[in-house]
Amino acid sequence: MIGQLGNTIAAIATPIGEGAISVIRVSGEFAINKVASRFRGKINLSKAKGHTAHFGRIVNNQNETIDEVVCTVFREPKSFTGENTVEVSCHGGIHVTRRVLECILEIGVHPAKPGEFTQRAFLNGKLDLSQAEAIADLIQAQSDKARRTSIDQLEGSLSKQIHIVREQLVNSLGLLELELDFSEENIALIDKKKVKNFFEHAILEIDQLIKTYKYGKVWREGVRVALIGVPNAGKSSLLNALLKENRAIVNDIPGTTRDFIEEKMMIEGVMFRLIDTAGLRETEDPVEKEGVHRTWKVIKRSDIIVLVHDSTKTITNEEIVFLETINKENKNQNGIIFANNKIDLQTERWLSKGLPERVIMVETSAVNNAGIEKLKETLFQRIFSQGQVENKESVIITNERHYSALLKAKQSLISALDSLRKGESEEFIAVDLRTAIDSIGEIIGLVTTEEILNNIFSKFCIGK
Amino acid sequence: MIGQLGNTIAAIATPIGEGAISVIRVSGEFAINKVASRFRGKINLSKAKGHTAHFGRIVNNQNETIDEVVCTVFREPKSFTGENTVEVSCHGGIHVTRRVLECILEIGVHPAKPGEFTQRAFLNGKLDLSQAEAIADLIQAQSDKARRTSIDQLEGSLSKQIHIVREQLVNSLGLLELELDFSEENIALIDKKKVKNFFEHAILEIDQLIKTYKYGKVWREGVRVALIGVPNAGKSSLLNALLKENRAIVNDIPGTTRDFIEEKMMIEGVMFRLIDTAGLRETEDPVEKEGVHRTWKVIKRSDIIVLVHDSTKTITNEEIVFLETINKENKNQNGIIFANNKIDLQTERWLSKGLPERVIMVETSAVNNAGIEKLKETLFQRIFSQGQVENKESVIITNERHYSALLKAKQSLISALDSLRKGESEEFIAVDLRTAIDSIGEIIGLVTTEEILNNIFSKFCIGK
Repeated sequence: MIGQLGNTIAAIATPIGEGAISVIRVSGEFAINKVASRFRGKINLSKAKGHTAHFGRIVNNQNETIDEVVCTVFREPKSFTGENTVEVSCHGGIHVTRRVLECILEIGVHPAKPGEFTQRAFLNGKLDLSQAEAIADLIQAQSDKARRTSIDQLEGSLSKQIHIVREQLVNSLGLLELELDFSEENIALIDKKKVKNFFEHAILEIDQLIKTYKYGKVWREGVRVALIGVPNAGKSSLLNALLKENRAIVNDIPGTTRDFIEEKMMIEGVMFRLIDTAGLRETEDPVEKEGVHRTWKVIKRSDIIVLVHDSTKTITNEEIVFLETINKENKNQNGIIFANNKIDLQTERWLSKGLPERVIMVETSAVNNAGIEKLKETLFQRIFSQGQVENKESVIITNERHYSALLKAKQSLISALDSLRKGESEEFIAVDLRTAIDSIGEIIGLVTTEEILNNIFSKFCIGK
Repeated sequence: MIGQLGNTIAAIATPIGEGAISVIRVSGEFAINKVASRFRGKINLSKAKGHTAHFGRIVNNQNETIDEVVCTVFREPKSFTGENTVEVSCHGGIHVTRRVLECILEIGVHPAKPGEFTQRAFLNGKLDLSQAEAIADLIQAQSDKARRTSIDQLEGSLSKQIHIVREQLVNSLGLLELELDFSEENIALIDKKKVKNFFEHAILEIDQLIKTYKYGKVWREGVRVALIGVPNAGKSSLLNALLKENRAIVNDIPGTTRDFIEEKMMIEGVMFRLIDTAGLRETEDPVEKEGVHRTWKVIKRSDIIVLVHDSTKTITNEEIVFLETINKENKNQNGIIFANNKIDLQTERWLSKGLPERVIMVETSAVNNAGIEKLKETLFQRIFSQGQVENKESVIITNERHYSALLKAKQSLISALDSLRKGESEEFIAVDLRTAIDSIGEIIGLVTTEEILNNIFSKFCIGK
């Protein structure tokens, strides 16, 4: 995509659907002139000042009105992309919006690729890569925690931290290279102990960022909870009881398809995604087999498993076997919750003896809401038991790419530290240090390849 | 709703979903000051000139950034509503957009009711009622014909025509009333023949508008086509064959629910809505019975019926009975098309003898696409056979309310003409004439009640 910056691009920037207005964004050196040629208003749009809005009509090549619009003009470099930009605000119908876009595309304007506006903003130096990524996260944010970490990142909190760490590393690399230049003269310019201390400190700082990813990931994506159980264990009623007061808060995004019904609820500002799975029964029926196969896929991708058991029945061997299998196959889990359901019907107390390790029991009833709050608490604690990172000032890593880059940087620094301790040549140390600097730089886009960029921006929606 | 014009109102104006940007519209005397109190940018928004755009942040009451936004300020009366307005363009995520709206609603701004912005535009004299209605139609337009008639209406083509007709009626009412004032003096001020000619002319003009409704309705709403047939007649394959090249053109609007699967296709710019119904089999099974009941409901609301018949079988008594029942029960239909399907399999030619009146046969095959084009042509001709009104200059009535008002006006004028012919008192004639003037005036909102207005605007989407 790089190198086509000269093109004028356009796309619908608002969600697709029916609303009062839709906005079509047009960006590029000639964007204003091009839109002006299809705009009829009181003024010639090509002469409009930046940051001004103008009412008029968009016409086709036969001068027929397509729609009445308001065009807002932004002049380079004072626009989102850093280029000349027009935002055409038309009526928000699906058909009329498309017709206005078609009219604009007819005059030598290219349809924008996903993320192309943000990519241009990045290439034009309006924001760094981590800020560009924050925009995608912000749009997809489904909880306030997710929104907050994204807007912090967009406003540069992560960039700032990364710049500080990187600058320190660059400075020590400078010293190391100076020493290398004078190495034949055997002059010791740097204090090895100081460098060692510095490396240790840098590793610690990077490690602190790495540690936040556990929460960052959960805040960004939510906690995946798989509900499983034999038929009639009361899985659906329990799901409904959990969702009762939450339904209105979290809405589905139109257009996403899933193998399973997924319902969302918030616990203390964190989104939990409850996935109602098919049964787990061993079966020969091919359709049911496929269902069981998919259930296992969900289990493997989940953060927590809730096994719903009908407490009026004794635990079956089937359930025990499943619990043990899940336990064995899911090392990274935050454990399993055994929801001993229908306790309103239960006469005798059934004890949790015999449950495998890492399985915690909660007694529930969807009928009288018993244990529902306890179940929510338990879900929350399974994730946040090891002390919550909820310091307003601290930067949170939410992005897997940043996480990997930090891990790589840490690894290189550990290796550099190791070389230093072993008294190895400065050259070796410098190589590791450079790798660390590059890894850190990748986060904010100082070091990128076209592949990295395309990979990032292709995940954006069109119009962004 | 009337009388609350002083309030500041706000709503999300763009479709709900994920996109690059969403727009929140805020309108009312204090709209700019109110948004300014939650806006942090280079300038104080409350001092911004009209038609200018400003980058900044929306903050909550703790001064925490909710989102980065661009606020476009419009100053009364130069705005859509005619009031002070701010359009807050924020990031287009579902959660972040809601949070920005919440922030604005916290400072004494009311959530807008459906259509409230447009209602204010009407009450502030920015557009008349037929123009306000055109906005809703424009947003819902699903074909270019529908868009064109709506934009024409929004630009005042209907209003202009209505004003002309109404003015003529008002003038003659003036003359009539003058004559009434002098009636005791027995002076004949008006030329009865001239008045008669004038009435006849006005009726003709109104009638021409009335006649366009047949097309206007179809352009606006599309043609409803019910596909019926016994199981295995090939209904679904025929539907797919019809849709083959059309699928991509017309998209569904998210959020609409239907009893039946409805697919859309365009024939010569007109939308045809194909409704795949359940069978029509006589049954005692309660579930199937409900299906048949709903099928009949679809048939009654359809413009055309296509009965799909398996041509390898002889026509059953069941089918004959159904054809006759449909024929009898649906006087307003554009007839029935008998799709003699699977002709690729057919060895002997089966003749259309014995088909009831108003049933036209088309031979089709979904396998080799035989007759598919013919079927489309036949569908189109059933609607547009009586000569198409496709004059660019002519005003098209698309709205049922306008149609009813015109019918009422015509009726009153016929009655006035009748009184005139019978030499009845001018008083009678004047009463009818006044009714006609009021009916005509209703279209553009010169005569309205709160009930009429609420009825119209409550059908709008929120944010419009």
